Amino acid sequence: MKVILSLSGGLDSTCLLSRLFKQVEVLPVIFSYGSKHNRYENEAAYMVCKYYDLKPLHIELDQVMVEFRSNLLKTGGEIPEGHYSAPSMSQTVVPARNLIFISILAGLAESNDAQKVALAVHAGDHHIYPDCRPEFVKSADKTVSLATDGKVSLMAPFLMMSKGEVLKEGLVERAPVHLTRTCYKDQLIACGKCGSCVERLEAFQQCGMKDPIDYAEDTK
Amino acid sequence: MKVILSLSGGLDSTCLLSRLFKQVEVLPVIFSYGSKHNRYENEAAYMVCKYYDLKPLHIELDQVMVEFRSNLLKTGGEIPEGHYSAPSMSQTVVPARNLIFISILAGLAESNDAQKVALAVHAGDHHIYPDCRPEFVKSADKTVSLATDGKVSLMAPFLMMSKGEVLKEGLVERAPVHLTRTCYKDQLIACGKCGSCVERLEAFQQCGMKDPIDYAEDTK
Repeated sequence: MKVILSLSGGLDSTCLLSRLFKQVEVLPVIFSYGSKHNRYENEAAYMVCKYYDLKPLHIELDQVMVEFRSNLLKTGGEIPEGHYSAPSMSQTVVPARNLIFISILAGLAESNDAQKVALAVHAGDHHIYPDCRPEFVKSADKTVSLATDGKVSLMAPFLMMSKGEVLKEGLVERAPVHLTRTCYKDQLIACGKCGSCVERLEAFQQCGMKDPIDYAEDTK
Repeated sequence: MKVILSLSGGLDSTCLLSRLFKQVEVLPVIFSYGSKHNRYENEAAYMVCKYYDLKPLHIELDQVMVEFRSNLLKTGGEIPEGHYSAPSMSQTVVPARNLIFISILAGLAESNDAQKVALAVHAGDHHIYPDCRPEFVKSADKTVSLATDGKVSLMAPFLMMSKGEVLKEGLVERAPVHLTRTCYKDQLIACGKCGSCVERLEAFQQCGMKDPIDYAEDTK
């Protein structure tokens, strides 16, 4: 089996890669789309690919998303601080981002004779991001299958797992978590305060392990 | 109501614009994606926008689709000649193209406070293009609605109409069909022989009208 994987350079997709790598042929796809932290997460994604000796495809959507409304993008306002599940985090939603990624991945899968598109969405994403929820993933799977005449479908094995559980599995699979990038801010060193950092730190805490990456401020 | 319309510069989307223009606020979106006939259809789309005094958004996917497999693309083989419904026309399918367009249009709709994404797919598209069939459109509508938390949905009013019926309505609405571009080939003057030209000529024949555009060869 051949699987197309959306690899953001974050914790979740890197953990998913560590699982899939041993089981199937994986073609990682790295998106850039004009988010503030894009160059850092893209770099992380490339380092993860190098770690696994995989050659990724790079899809650039920066210009496509110039007209999109979101504080996650360079064209938007400030990234909010606080917990990942706080209402303020909805400012970081990029409308239909995952749907757009899934659609392009489906086309790439069919073009490259891959049968599956793998997504690392997990339960922590459900609250804020409508296009990460189980009912969306189920509907998108059907839509992708219809669009490709049954040749391509989705897999989202972390859909009902917490980020802590995803990380726990990744650590067992020896995922290179030290190479990953999670922070939403436009700075090299992770801030430790945005919702995305807070959720990552919680996941490491749940696994009883210190996060190996650097933070701008002491995170305990 | 505000509607985002995918305007290819062809007959169908121009006829749809002629209908919508009188009823709602329309934001046309023009895609380029590396097809052989792209610059000609893009030009036509711009002329149609000028005709209606509308300012379109332009979304460029040329680089995104470089890795896609299709004879419709500059990177692919020859465009087949013959009838639009012939098996050889399947070489012109661009994997998940409509799904990708729909996804981007959904994100643009949410970002621009539009409630609907309008598609000009019609019954003649069903045979060849899986992502133009009624079951796909129904599933994509649900997926888009879930992705946007119910803020955006699809409309495809021509879904069960033949191209002849679409044209008939467009002529009543005084659509500027003389500005449209249908031919799939990489040449300024329409070939009259590719499946796309053949289907267009049939539609005009069904309406008892001569196609006002020029053809490279006599088309009767």
